[in-house]
Amino acid sequence: MINQRMYELGSEPSAIRELFAYGQARKAEIGEDNVFDFSIGNPSVPAPEAVKRAILDVMEQPPAQVHGYTPSQGAPSVRAAVAASLNRRFDTSYEGANIYMTCGAAASLSICFNAVGNPGDEFIVISPYFPEYKVWIENAGCNCIEVPARRDDFQMNIEAIEGAITPKTKAIVINSPNNPVGSVYPECDLIELANALRRKQDEFGTTIYIIADEPYREIVYGNVRVPFVPPIYENTLVCYSYSKSLSLPGERIGYILVPNTMPDWEHTFNAVCGAGRALGFVCAPSLLQYVIERCVDEPSDVEAYAKNREALYGGLTKLGYECVAPQGAFYLWVRALEPDAQAFAEAAKAHELLLVPSNSFGVEGWLRVSYCVAHETIVNSMPAFAELMREYQTR
Amino acid sequence: MINQRMYELGSEPSAIRELFAYGQARKAEIGEDNVFDFSIGNPSVPAPEAVKRAILDVMEQPPAQVHGYTPSQGAPSVRAAVAASLNRRFDTSYEGANIYMTCGAAASLSICFNAVGNPGDEFIVISPYFPEYKVWIENAGCNCIEVPARRDDFQMNIEAIEGAITPKTKAIVINSPNNPVGSVYPECDLIELANALRRKQDEFGTTIYIIADEPYREIVYGNVRVPFVPPIYENTLVCYSYSKSLSLPGERIGYILVPNTMPDWEHTFNAVCGAGRALGFVCAPSLLQYVIERCVDEPSDVEAYAKNREALYGGLTKLGYECVAPQGAFYLWVRALEPDAQAFAEAAKAHELLLVPSNSFGVEGWLRVSYCVAHETIVNSMPAFAELMREYQTR
Repeated sequence: MINQRMYELGSEPSAIRELFAYGQARKAEIGEDNVFDFSIGNPSVPAPEAVKRAILDVMEQPPAQVHGYTPSQGAPSVRAAVAASLNRRFDTSYEGANIYMTCGAAASLSICFNAVGNPGDEFIVISPYFPEYKVWIENAGCNCIEVPARRDDFQMNIEAIEGAITPKTKAIVINSPNNPVGSVYPECDLIELANALRRKQDEFGTTIYIIADEPYREIVYGNVRVPFVPPIYENTLVCYSYSKSLSLPGERIGYILVPNTMPDWEHTFNAVCGAGRALGFVCAPSLLQYVIERCVDEPSDVEAYAKNREALYGGLTKLGYECVAPQGAFYLWVRALEPDAQAFAEAAKAHELLLVPSNSFGVEGWLRVSYCVAHETIVNSMPAFAELMREYQTR
Repeated sequence: MINQRMYELGSEPSAIRELFAYGQARKAEIGEDNVFDFSIGNPSVPAPEAVKRAILDVMEQPPAQVHGYTPSQGAPSVRAAVAASLNRRFDTSYEGANIYMTCGAAASLSICFNAVGNPGDEFIVISPYFPEYKVWIENAGCNCIEVPARRDDFQMNIEAIEGAITPKTKAIVINSPNNPVGSVYPECDLIELANALRRKQDEFGTTIYIIADEPYREIVYGNVRVPFVPPIYENTLVCYSYSKSLSLPGERIGYILVPNTMPDWEHTFNAVCGAGRALGFVCAPSLLQYVIERCVDEPSDVEAYAKNREALYGGLTKLGYECVAPQGAFYLWVRALEPDAQAFAEAAKAHELLLVPSNSFGVEGWLRVSYCVAHETIVNSMPAFAELMREYQTR
């Protein structure tokens, strides 16, 4: 009698959340230090001191102002601050009017799918991909079309993407730096993708968006640069969140950028406003909006993740595991030692290693290892990874 | 090419928001004190000191804990605190497991409509009603069925409600204390409604929910008591928000109660979780969740609203306006001096009185006057109301 689809979504938690819950229970059983939980993407680096200072500063303002409704698009001063920060970084000319503040990346994406998608439309995702994309796309009445990444380096297969585009294609979702692989898409590939999309727009007489899901934009290693997509492709919607860059995942704060370089951008912006309204988002949390206004240029603390990355990637490679060298985000993509990733994840569990099998991300044979954990967890887990390797070598 | 329905929802702001925006512009033009803005329900009473103390207290905790993801249903300690508070007040036996923390009342309602509604289902609302109900019901693919309140006292017309129930009726939304009328539904009427719903459930072999939208539960005057609905009717979902009771409308914090006295409540609770997930709500803002844990028994400051109510209701009645005596919330329902409420609201505007015509709420001939304003606004507006009355008397 209730909505069966919603019941199923609510009663079958994601494999990631399930593994995380198992880890919590297992830690209670055998001790925190004896479980190596690489399951979830909860930032281990605490929010910067600047966030706390900003909260205390905002709390000096009159409460009716701090906690009152903001316009549904966000407080004007906050939107202006976000636009100005983008302009400083990317040499753009955005205004507050291009920014729609949201309750985090999930809200940003769900709103975009509903804003541009009509029932029956298609959204292309690149597998492996964050599994909630499919939930939100289908909730907008649309279809999630999976196009596999290249199997050698897990970069975009642009030929395959172009081949998957139909007259019903409304957008392609790209996520760079990538969850779960850690790859960053280079500018040359984005230019090639843009050209392919323009060809298909001309062929079908449609508009095809790029939805750039960028919560990891600030979390990159070495000299890697994450190209900013809107100057490369005009029909780009950027979905941003401060969950990872400022370690605020519980606070639900982010934004959608509808660039003023998009043809008829006001029209699309209005659809974004309408979708936010229809889904039940009244405004992004007000106190946190004012915190963002104050922290908009705060750098992310990448050092701890860089140290973890080195220890994990170096350690596992040395043990003989095949890994994709992560350029960004805080995930390592490791090949399972047998074709069945779920069976391999179970075998790893016996060594107290909690790894997410790639089936959750729409592909076979790999695992995601989240390294947003305490550094000792990585160091202390190495003997277990070595044992696991030995077990498979002597099978 | 984008979603036309979303575009329209985004480009046609609600009449209330439009009037509010007009008021802001007009104040800039002729001075704050010369515009009597009764348009919007933004609490004028500031958040209690206890909220600030709670925020500062939470900020003493480690940031990774304060700002980290909570489970999607909410932090266990917060859910337990909300349940315990309800138990103290209403002699119930809820547990944290019955509470789903949300991003405010809009989220609570949107999630409930999606959780229990299947495409084509009907939700009954009592007109006049909060206009966003229709937006959220239709976004769930369902139909909004308006049943008029009684025309003498704007209480529920239970016979009419029963007559409107069909095999497709999934729920009736009740909002007591009521926006826009200020009425509180008495226990005897709720019992009668419950019996009518049970009769129809038996007749059609269906489950019919009451969705009790209760953001104004704490804001009542004199000896008025707001009956708690779940003990009266088993299939009740309570949608709560702290926007009005703690003056936190911008923070987006509330909850859904799925009572353990509802048959098969776990099933419905899972559908609530699924709907939250599908719409893009990951969790309610974490810092504010922990604030609620600390402020769950904080009383609402009703005194200022009571004083405003007396001045406005007393003043307008004395001038000859027909008003419904408000029992709760912070709205006065006033009969327009001509049949066309929109024309009357325009005439009022010429006296710098910003009143919301009842068409926004699905009925003709009345106006909503929000008295969550500075007391002087009410006192100073009386000559303008008197002028307006004279103007109509001498027409």
